[in-house]
Amino acid sequence: MEKKVSGSVVNRLPRYYRHITDLYESGVERISSKELSRRMNVTASQIRQDLNCFGGFGQQGYGYNVEMLRSEIAKILGLDRGYTAVMVGAGHMGRTFATNTKFESRGFKLIGIFDSSPSVIGTDIQGHTVMDYAEIGDFVREHKPEMAILTVPKEATKSVAEDLRALGIKAFMNFSYTELREMEGVIVENVHLSDSLMRLSYKISEKEDGGR
Amino acid sequence: MEKKVSGSVVNRLPRYYRHITDLYESGVERISSKELSRRMNVTASQIRQDLNCFGGFGQQGYGYNVEMLRSEIAKILGLDRGYTAVMVGAGHMGRTFATNTKFESRGFKLIGIFDSSPSVIGTDIQGHTVMDYAEIGDFVREHKPEMAILTVPKEATKSVAEDLRALGIKAFMNFSYTELREMEGVIVENVHLSDSLMRLSYKISEKEDGGR
Repeated sequence: MEKKVSGSVVNRLPRYYRHITDLYESGVERISSKELSRRMNVTASQIRQDLNCFGGFGQQGYGYNVEMLRSEIAKILGLDRGYTAVMVGAGHMGRTFATNTKFESRGFKLIGIFDSSPSVIGTDIQGHTVMDYAEIGDFVREHKPEMAILTVPKEATKSVAEDLRALGIKAFMNFSYTELREMEGVIVENVHLSDSLMRLSYKISEKEDGGR
Repeated sequence: MEKKVSGSVVNRLPRYYRHITDLYESGVERISSKELSRRMNVTASQIRQDLNCFGGFGQQGYGYNVEMLRSEIAKILGLDRGYTAVMVGAGHMGRTFATNTKFESRGFKLIGIFDSSPSVIGTDIQGHTVMDYAEIGDFVREHKPEMAILTVPKEATKSVAEDLRALGIKAFMNFSYTELREMEGVIVENVHLSDSLMRLSYKISEKEDGGR
């Protein structure tokens, strides 16, 4: 199918996908933009604009077919392509992310978790036995994952990313509290949890000042 | 000072703040939009547009005064207002966030961490002794934090948020892998780590298809 979705719509699609998936999993078959608007706290016209721009799923007086909408959004996001990922770093961040994330419905199968600390290697995280980082080269050459999730200490981020890039990894999701610079030919998604703190600070101060 | 900053600029300001702070902490006194552009991988014209919209810090041929720019961004984000926060949930997510976040330079002082599990109460996280959630009422009434960070299990999110709202907490940062709906008069920032996974899936698929 053709993609011609703007960047800001793409940024909003994951949230639509989560909400539509919740509906789907609760057995809801169709939903109006008005009801979706209420659940998501977004205007109905924003929803119509976002969802209609990639196909006319919504029908006047019927609403959206939940299953169809879900599968279309999944296709646009590439969630149906069977990508695989490895995680490097089995500390607190790695553990919480591996334990709580529904990887397969978010586009990736997690196929291996690695760490270099002897106290962590061999332990279990959601059915994955943590492997020795020293073995990641053979593993990546054999299984060819598209993506690596970095939950390593700050200091290690750059060298791990360079190792993995040399092994052919094409995309990184970086949780390491330090920004990974763009590398040529590689996709990087830096997750900065503290940016949310600052946005919240802004919203509180704005409200204190009388909500301009 | 007057705020008249658009939503999308506000969303980008935390990243500017992080980069400018790194420069400031390395002793850099001024920086051109061109050099900042290279470091941040954003066009120089985007930078000028974003930063000039709230004051003319940049001077032709001189660039930005790093210290001044940093302090102006901090003011706009409300980072200088001395807000305080409590954290509920001292599991893996709470621990990693409390350990790695520079709270005070991100707008909030973390003043207490709570959990209801006897195995965690009394343990130490970055100098904070984890307190019993049963005591949070007295603590909040006494210290009046503006914000609560929720790193509790999914099932507990809603009831904890309602407890805290009744105690007067006005803003929530929610990491709980479930969306906290807007509550009247309360600011909610839901952090969905798996949305980044889906955005990455989109980018990989887009690239596979030839980078439209």
